[in-house]
Amino acid sequence: MQQAVQRQVRAAVEPADRTIRLALAGCGTVGGALLEQLTRRSSAIAHRHGIRIDVVRILVRDERRDRGGHVPRDLVTTDLHEFLATDCDIVVEAIGGTDTAVVIARHALMCGRALVTANKALLAARGAELADLARRHDAPLSFEASVAGAVPIVRVLRDALPHAGVSAVRGVLNGTTNYLLTRMHAGATFEAALAEAQRFGYAEADPARDLDGRDAADKVAVLAWQAFGVPPGRVHVETRGLLPWPDRIVADAVALGGVARSVGEARRNAAGVSCTVEPVVVNGDSPLAGLVGADNLVEIETAAAATIRLAGPGAGGDATASALLADILAAAPSPPAPARNVGPAADTRRHRWSISVPAARREELAAAAHRIRVPAADVTEDGLHVRLLTEPVDRSLAGALVRALELQACEPVLLRVER
Amino acid sequence: MQQAVQRQVRAAVEPADRTIRLALAGCGTVGGALLEQLTRRSSAIAHRHGIRIDVVRILVRDERRDRGGHVPRDLVTTDLHEFLATDCDIVVEAIGGTDTAVVIARHALMCGRALVTANKALLAARGAELADLARRHDAPLSFEASVAGAVPIVRVLRDALPHAGVSAVRGVLNGTTNYLLTRMHAGATFEAALAEAQRFGYAEADPARDLDGRDAADKVAVLAWQAFGVPPGRVHVETRGLLPWPDRIVADAVALGGVARSVGEARRNAAGVSCTVEPVVVNGDSPLAGLVGADNLVEIETAAAATIRLAGPGAGGDATASALLADILAAAPSPPAPARNVGPAADTRRHRWSISVPAARREELAAAAHRIRVPAADVTEDGLHVRLLTEPVDRSLAGALVRALELQACEPVLLRVER
Repeated sequence: MQQAVQRQVRAAVEPADRTIRLALAGCGTVGGALLEQLTRRSSAIAHRHGIRIDVVRILVRDERRDRGGHVPRDLVTTDLHEFLATDCDIVVEAIGGTDTAVVIARHALMCGRALVTANKALLAARGAELADLARRHDAPLSFEASVAGAVPIVRVLRDALPHAGVSAVRGVLNGTTNYLLTRMHAGATFEAALAEAQRFGYAEADPARDLDGRDAADKVAVLAWQAFGVPPGRVHVETRGLLPWPDRIVADAVALGGVARSVGEARRNAAGVSCTVEPVVVNGDSPLAGLVGADNLVEIETAAAATIRLAGPGAGGDATASALLADILAAAPSPPAPARNVGPAADTRRHRWSISVPAARREELAAAAHRIRVPAADVTEDGLHVRLLTEPVDRSLAGALVRALELQACEPVLLRVER
Repeated sequence: MQQAVQRQVRAAVEPADRTIRLALAGCGTVGGALLEQLTRRSSAIAHRHGIRIDVVRILVRDERRDRGGHVPRDLVTTDLHEFLATDCDIVVEAIGGTDTAVVIARHALMCGRALVTANKALLAARGAELADLARRHDAPLSFEASVAGAVPIVRVLRDALPHAGVSAVRGVLNGTTNYLLTRMHAGATFEAALAEAQRFGYAEADPARDLDGRDAADKVAVLAWQAFGVPPGRVHVETRGLLPWPDRIVADAVALGGVARSVGEARRNAAGVSCTVEPVVVNGDSPLAGLVGADNLVEIETAAAATIRLAGPGAGGDATASALLADILAAAPSPPAPARNVGPAADTRRHRWSISVPAARREELAAAAHRIRVPAADVTEDGLHVRLLTEPVDRSLAGALVRALELQACEPVLLRVER
């Protein structure tokens, strides 16, 4: 078994300097999306990073499940010992839970292999132990994917802000909950919103850990660890989720003139670090209220640089797989990216444009638009100025119209319209 | 002069494993803020990174200007050759412009020293040349501070998303312009908004490069380079700023039912990379419209992980210095952060809370609030439920009230109120 069958997911078309052997535990939504991205982006990875990533073993719970074309059947095993014995450089743990995951994680690190995981529950329970193992065996431990999906919060806390005097890390860390709250504020009942979320894949079949706040609490523990060094297993996260009366949370927030958000927060104070997950009423014009749907938003409050915000897709296979892939590439010994053969180009998209001139110059505007054949969607006038709104056209056409008007000293104002 | 006078900005109280000698070119808003942060955070840096940063030389244009207590007079020089000859590990270029800056940058890299710069104009003009020098002399070149201040966009593009199939990087990259547009949408004239911005330090005495879009165009060139590998000197950024009729831009946006934002954008298409800076009308509920004041916001559109947003203070001494400091620490050979002696703690802040119960249980709510001495700011009832809004109180007090109501099966709903 030591001599595992190796297979390249797809032949890289560019020469790759080095091959990285990757063993993947778990092939559900996240693991499947990772395999798909490894296949689809293998050529770009070879080109930019000079490496080829070979998947050498895939551990699954149910061998018979159909996993589509990205999953080579001969690499799949249900045997944990066979998986552990597979010779590889990087182990990706996407199997979830803590029982099997901790065995896989410990074994990988003790063998000096890089461990990349999306498992916040594992980290919240065993993070300090795994970090210690990683140090002692000089094995990289990475977990960008464990918090806020594709939003690179772990990396930013670790690399960009270690010196900045972080006083708090907080935000919306559970996309399911935020989707439900958004829909309920729009008038849906909790039951209808949940059914909708499950239909669209924003909520799992069993959303218990999302709804009672445990999922967000694990993420808060990981953030407290990264921001403040407090071991996640020692942290107590005071947690209240949306249950048992989610509709009343929204009704109360509306009665207070605000918007309900489920906020996870780790905050440094004189005594240590306090951690909470709870429903909070925020102002309608706040960034937290502005976050609608299943996205995540993290706010980092710092002494040196005020508040920095990161937002993006916080869950889902592609977002989580993207974060796993960033960690995989960071753990691989990759040379600096070569300059790519990309040059400047013109904007090829069509946009709608607004072109205004003083009202006295309306004739020149109409004549120039007619001559240059700029199709008008609307023309309005308010006494001072006349405004032409174009149909979607090339940038060059709007530019030609403006230059023609400038030559006639018509003082045109050009705006791109994105609404 | 080779044997430069060295002085430690402040004795680190923790033992530091290694001393990094830093030469600083420029001691204006950014350079001064960096010296202040180096002083204030020296103990935290020694503790977390195991290094001590000694400032060994400071190049200024005007020796006589008073720079306050953070700037040791005996390190200050106006002599470029003396500055270049100073033996050091890291050169920080915060002098601005391109003439002196390019001499400093080339010299540092050719000596194998790390170069950290905030100078987007330098990078836009000479980035590829400097990157090539850095490669050949194995000298780190870092410029997180050159785009969007404290927002770690360069790091995120380089480390977190190199594989993600970035298709566009765009956003509000000039805080001065965004402050002016925000104020003008609130009714101020351009002249009044500009005077206000200068009074509050959001606009420089000569804001020409902000207003005509050149500042944002330099940043777009740097982003296009980092995201797509196109050499910044080869990029043409089609640029229109707020001038010459800023008030008309806002009036036209309002007439179109939207909000005007100055958007910088680098976008990959089949032919190459197109780069623009121009006024754009966006929807009032869009993230770009939600960005008010002098903050920056960057949106990264990716194939693998949808759109990721980063926002925060984009300019100003502290924000820029914070980004410089992150680059300085990344360039220094620093051991992994030791676990810090921080433990869990209770939340020590006071909050306002909303506690609601079914209307039939109003007596129990009033009695429990009275008994536990929770001060009420307001009590409202809507037929279904009665809601108590507290004065700011400790979390423990709100928790005690909820537990008392739960014991009486009053079905309380607790919300933290942040508005």
